[in-house]
Amino acid sequence: MKWIRSFHPGRRAILAAALATLSGASAVPTTGGQDGPAAAGRADPPTLEGWTRGKGWGWIWGPKDEVGSLNAMSDRSRGEALRLASEGKSYDLGQAYSRRSFRWAGHNPGEVMTFRSPDRIAAMGDPDAPPPGTNPDRIHWHSCALFISDNVGTQIDGLGHVTAGADDHWYNGFTEADWGGDFGIRKCDATTIPPIIARGVMVDVAAWKGVDALPAHTVITAEDLQAALDRQGVAIRPGDVVLIRTGAGRYWGDEGADHETIAEHDSAGLDLAATRWLVEQQGAMMVGSDTSGFEVSPPPPGTGSMIPVHKYLLVDQGVHIGELHNLEALSRDEVFEFCYVASTNKIKGTTAGFALRPIALR
Amino acid sequence: MKWIRSFHPGRRAILAAALATLSGASAVPTTGGQDGPAAAGRADPPTLEGWTRGKGWGWIWGPKDEVGSLNAMSDRSRGEALRLASEGKSYDLGQAYSRRSFRWAGHNPGEVMTFRSPDRIAAMGDPDAPPPGTNPDRIHWHSCALFISDNVGTQIDGLGHVTAGADDHWYNGFTEADWGGDFGIRKCDATTIPPIIARGVMVDVAAWKGVDALPAHTVITAEDLQAALDRQGVAIRPGDVVLIRTGAGRYWGDEGADHETIAEHDSAGLDLAATRWLVEQQGAMMVGSDTSGFEVSPPPPGTGSMIPVHKYLLVDQGVHIGELHNLEALSRDEVFEFCYVASTNKIKGTTAGFALRPIALR
Amino acid sequence: MKWIRSFHPGRRAILAAALATLSGASAVPTTGGQDGPAAAGRADPPTLEGWTRGKGWGWIWGPKDEVGSLNAMSDRSRGEALRLASEGKSYDLGQAYSRRSFRWAGHNPGEVMTFRSPDRIAAMGDPDAPPPGTNPDRIHWHSCALFISDNVGTQIDGLGHVTAGADDHWYNGFTEADWGGDFGIRKCDATTIPPIIARGVMVDVAAWKGVDALPAHTVITAEDLQAALDRQGVAIRPGDVVLIRTGAGRYWGDEGADHETIAEHDSAGLDLAATRWLVEQQGAMMVGSDTSGFEVSPPPPGTGSMIPVHKYLLVDQGVHIGELHNLEALSRDEVFEFCYVASTNKIKGTTAGFALRPIALR
Amino acid sequence: MKWIRSFHPGRRAILAAALATLSGASAVPTTGGQDGPAAAGRADPPTLEGWTRGKGWGWIWGPKDEVGSLNAMSDRSRGEALRLASEGKSYDLGQAYSRRSFRWAGHNPGEVMTFRSPDRIAAMGDPDAPPPGTNPDRIHWHSCALFISDNVGTQIDGLGHVTAGADDHWYNGFTEADWGGDFGIRKCDATTIPPIIARGVMVDVAAWKGVDALPAHTVITAEDLQAALDRQGVAIRPGDVVLIRTGAGRYWGDEGADHETIAEHDSAGLDLAATRWLVEQQGAMMVGSDTSGFEVSPPPPGTGSMIPVHKYLLVDQGVHIGELHNLEALSRDEVFEFCYVASTNKIKGTTAGFALRPIALR
Repeated sequence: MKWIRSFHPGRRAILAAALATLSGASAVPTTGGQDGPAAAGRADPPTLEGWTRGKGWGWIWGPKDEVGSLNAMSDRSRGEALRLASEGKSYDLGQAYSRRSFRWAGHNPGEVMTFRSPDRIAAMGDPDAPPPGTNPDRIHWHSCALFISDNVGTQIDGLGHVTAGADDHWYNGFTEADWGGDFGIRKCDATTIPPIIARGVMVDVAAWKGVDALPAHTVITAEDLQAALDRQGVAIRPGDVVLIRTGAGRYWGDEGADHETIAEHDSAGLDLAATRWLVEQQGAMMVGSDTSGFEVSPPPPGTGSMIPVHKYLLVDQGVHIGELHNLEALSRDEVFEFCYVASTNKIKGTTAGFALRPIALR
Repeated sequence: MKWIRSFHPGRRAILAAALATLSGASAVPTTGGQDGPAAAGRADPPTLEGWTRGKGWGWIWGPKDEVGSLNAMSDRSRGEALRLASEGKSYDLGQAYSRRSFRWAGHNPGEVMTFRSPDRIAAMGDPDAPPPGTNPDRIHWHSCALFISDNVGTQIDGLGHVTAGADDHWYNGFTEADWGGDFGIRKCDATTIPPIIARGVMVDVAAWKGVDALPAHTVITAEDLQAALDRQGVAIRPGDVVLIRTGAGRYWGDEGADHETIAEHDSAGLDLAATRWLVEQQGAMMVGSDTSGFEVSPPPPGTGSMIPVHKYLLVDQGVHIGELHNLEALSRDEVFEFCYVASTNKIKGTTAGFALRPIALR
Repeated sequence: MKWIRSFHPGRRAILAAALATLSGASAVPTTGGQDGPAAAGRADPPTLEGWTRGKGWGWIWGPKDEVGSLNAMSDRSRGEALRLASEGKSYDLGQAYSRRSFRWAGHNPGEVMTFRSPDRIAAMGDPDAPPPGTNPDRIHWHSCALFISDNVGTQIDGLGHVTAGADDHWYNGFTEADWGGDFGIRKCDATTIPPIIARGVMVDVAAWKGVDALPAHTVITAEDLQAALDRQGVAIRPGDVVLIRTGAGRYWGDEGADHETIAEHDSAGLDLAATRWLVEQQGAMMVGSDTSGFEVSPPPPGTGSMIPVHKYLLVDQGVHIGELHNLEALSRDEVFEFCYVASTNKIKGTTAGFALRPIALR
Repeated sequence: MKWIRSFHPGRRAILAAALATLSGASAVPTTGGQDGPAAAGRADPPTLEGWTRGKGWGWIWGPKDEVGSLNAMSDRSRGEALRLASEGKSYDLGQAYSRRSFRWAGHNPGEVMTFRSPDRIAAMGDPDAPPPGTNPDRIHWHSCALFISDNVGTQIDGLGHVTAGADDHWYNGFTEADWGGDFGIRKCDATTIPPIIARGVMVDVAAWKGVDALPAHTVITAEDLQAALDRQGVAIRPGDVVLIRTGAGRYWGDEGADHETIAEHDSAGLDLAATRWLVEQQGAMMVGSDTSGFEVSPPPPGTGSMIPVHKYLLVDQGVHIGELHNLEALSRDEVFEFCYVASTNKIKGTTAGFALRPIALR
């Protein structure tokens, strides 16, 4: 198999140790000096404020914090990331959203409706229309009204999206009783997500497996990720935005209207161990993928819920999740390292950035 | 007055010539060699593909084009702009939008509504909720449904927003009969606006005038802009994103709830001549401001409509307009030149990017 | 077969003559004196202002009329209808609508969202909430926001719902260019539908055929209707509201969530000839059924469109159509004649009354 | 003063006794035999199942009941009410609702948006449109999408609209924790409001006072009501729907767009004592008015909340409240007694019937 040839034994040892850590009670990192030359070439990732190897991030930014791991961004880290963009090439990672787009059935459907239109404004002559005498050039306008979910299209899940426990708490212990509301959440809404500018690493799992897209329900493991990274010759560093390509994004097309095909491939994703490896061993500051859920669906049995990875990332670690990112052009051009730039809508109460257009810069 | 001292006579002459051009039938640029040393220091801005001094942009990108002046972006121009971001400093130019935010009365109101919430999902046990047996960790979620206009909050007007003439055409001659629709416009919707990465120049008119914010209905002229630029020691170059600060943005606060104060100051803006000077003489690829309309309201008499500047920019020139940009921090830090990065939502049919969070990078 | 036994030959002759009329160019009624005793028992229905046998209704109420055949209601006709309600029994003909309800895919989906809720109003303390000092009894409230189509649930289609021809006209010649709009239609909207109080006749086709519900795509003919009426011993009179029971309504249940079963049976309905017989020979002032479309779907080939019956009723005749009426209890109790009372929502611009609860009174 | 002349002393005594009861702890009715001839002419209203003089209704219909006092309707009561409609005259009591209509600021705004329109369906040729080959008659359609509150226009408040106490309970003890939800309330939603058919009595307070409309904040007392009833020569009977006319409805006009005038007069209404008199002494099964809130606003000091009458009626008594009923034509024609017929939308979760069109029949 392709991945066996490209997978260095020494790296396997590191990974095994790391995975052992993840599954044990110990939080002590075990990446060790006993590794051979191949491993030596992979120096321990440098540390970063807020991040601890073997532990990741967590509720470490003070009791009022709503930002989580993105607090680790600094002028220095942004500056370094931006220097990756020396060519001035820009990749639009957004998938176009429309009323016909695939979405999770538990979110509300959407409509984009022409609200005002020039011919009708002229015909109606309603109070909002310009009086004809003031409008010899016949200037009118279009606007749209949207009914839309804050969890559709290319997204970044906010830290209040998922809750856990009897008190329905989210990141940093904010509870429904205290911070829920009729108009969305009142802590960790999308307005608290700062513009994200960081080194991005795309892990092309589909390319590494040599498939158009991973089959339905494929579990992506830490070993898969390491193997794909090795093939790419790129290492993750603490503070990175790590985007996983399953290939499902290729079926989005113009507006994500082929629900059946998308839904099938959309179910591939990471398991909890792979996610923990990314966060606790590699220092991912944010993770994402080209599917709507990032994690494999359904999760392996015994994981505590249908979305254990969401709970781990958003609630426990304070790590945002990017979803439905279009990684096709990056894959085609074999762009594995870039400057990732994303800024969500700034709408109070919303639980995620939606219908976004993140950018990868080279 | 402050601006007289900082305004060089030679530059006045250039400006006068330019303004004469704007008001005449001739499209030949007249910035000339008769100017003294001061003018000599202001070399003609370099040219750029698609832009012609004295003419600006226009319908020059082919009959199918939906992008307008943003076509002038290139890897080279983006690379140059990104090199302005050497410090890694990031300014969030978005104003937070909520149900209470100021908006133009002709756009639909908005609501951000809690759609799913953890306690209720648990209590309701409806078909979308996870069966309790599969959910020992009691993991639930929040999501919001939004009813919202595509013309609220920090915006970038698309080239199909405004129409003109008996055929209700917009940029590049797309007409309502051919390209209107029930679900928004079918040419020049916001999905066609590429990620914008360009040199940004902020013209702090309020600071130059020494006021918190310009009084209601203040007309900003080309002379004002030149004077403010001179004070700042910054020149516009073809291909720039030019953002005008009136100071109105300081009244937005947490969510734009003080409609009365915002509305008053929101009426200051550029007249058509100043806008033409930016586009035709200076080469602005995109313009914007901290108000909801960019242009002065009401316009001077005899301008053909209530929004002559919108018509000129969007329909005739194919130049996008940024609105309600938060320029307060840039003003405070005297950041007049930066890398402007903005990407709109990617929603089919929409006429503008809305509730955005553009970034200024230094 | 059951229906043969109950179908009188003389009536067959009347019906044949009537159907011949419908298919010919002649508008002269041919119900004649050559019929035998059985037919003699069926006296010609009395005439009614506005209605002409063999022609029906039409654009006869003046160029400004938006009401159509419902103009035929009078104090006298209402009084007579109300006298049918001597027992004081009330049947609720509405089907409950929810986010999960079956609807035609071309209409927008719907959501009923909790907008304000007592615990959250108290927790949020937002400007709309009562200040605690004024609220010692802790009084709060619930309200809902709805995103909904005006063509869902138990409906009465308005006369502007369907358009025809190159000028996109509807009833009485109102055209899109003149009377369309951004906020719904400006002629024949649901506010123009008067409270409907008339004699109602339910034609239980499913019971006559001895089936739970008609199979998919069943064409209901005029002969079927006459046979079912004969079985019931009830005759239609000019000015009646005639409701056809296919049995599809029995699958609606609590909220119309079983889309597959409903969709299958929902396709049974009248063809154009049967509809014309109801209107032109029997004088139906309004027609309706327990399906979402009244007419059979798809229509027989060569009928000019997918909805020839809608076009005939709404555009040509000015006859409103009732849809998704719950006729199950009427069938169970064999109530075939009653006082029908319905009043639509009074919302400007809407094209139909929706999620209604018409009443049958005995 | 006019009302003194028409107010019989004996009746005053009854009223005084009744009011004494209302303000005291005693629940024992005190309408007594000691009254003189005038009072003797006013026989005690007959009793009705569920209603107790001096107590009214309440939580008496069993622990699962969601209907409240409307349970008192019977075939007999409906039959009697319908017999009032001998003339066949119909009065439409609905006010037309539009995006411009007056509403309480705490409810969400509304829009009625053209969703599909014939010219655009034809031009777009989207998947929902009929293929041209199947549509030689060019048949298309209009539909609207609505974003709307369930508390606008002519309304009937449901028994779950208002909550009280630390457990946020509504009628019959249903609590938010148990029966709240994301999609509206799950007990006492509008689908549980049966079609209402009852004797209606309109109390024309404005006419009795000889004014167009009551001044802002006018408190309507039980004495006022009795006086107006005396003037009209009509008595309330247990089981009646009692509608109070303040005259505010005359300012609604075409669509309720004159917010200022409406808001001013909208503040007149009943105080708690008058409401208790209607329910506990007169046996009103439902009450209503031509204002948006029925009760006087603000309430007299010390009443426990801003809406003590709502709490009393909806929570404690289980009595529905009709609001914004158009009583102008009834007043003009001096129709004080009629058959009231109303049926709300049948939408799951909703807290009120909205934009209704109740009918008064004579």
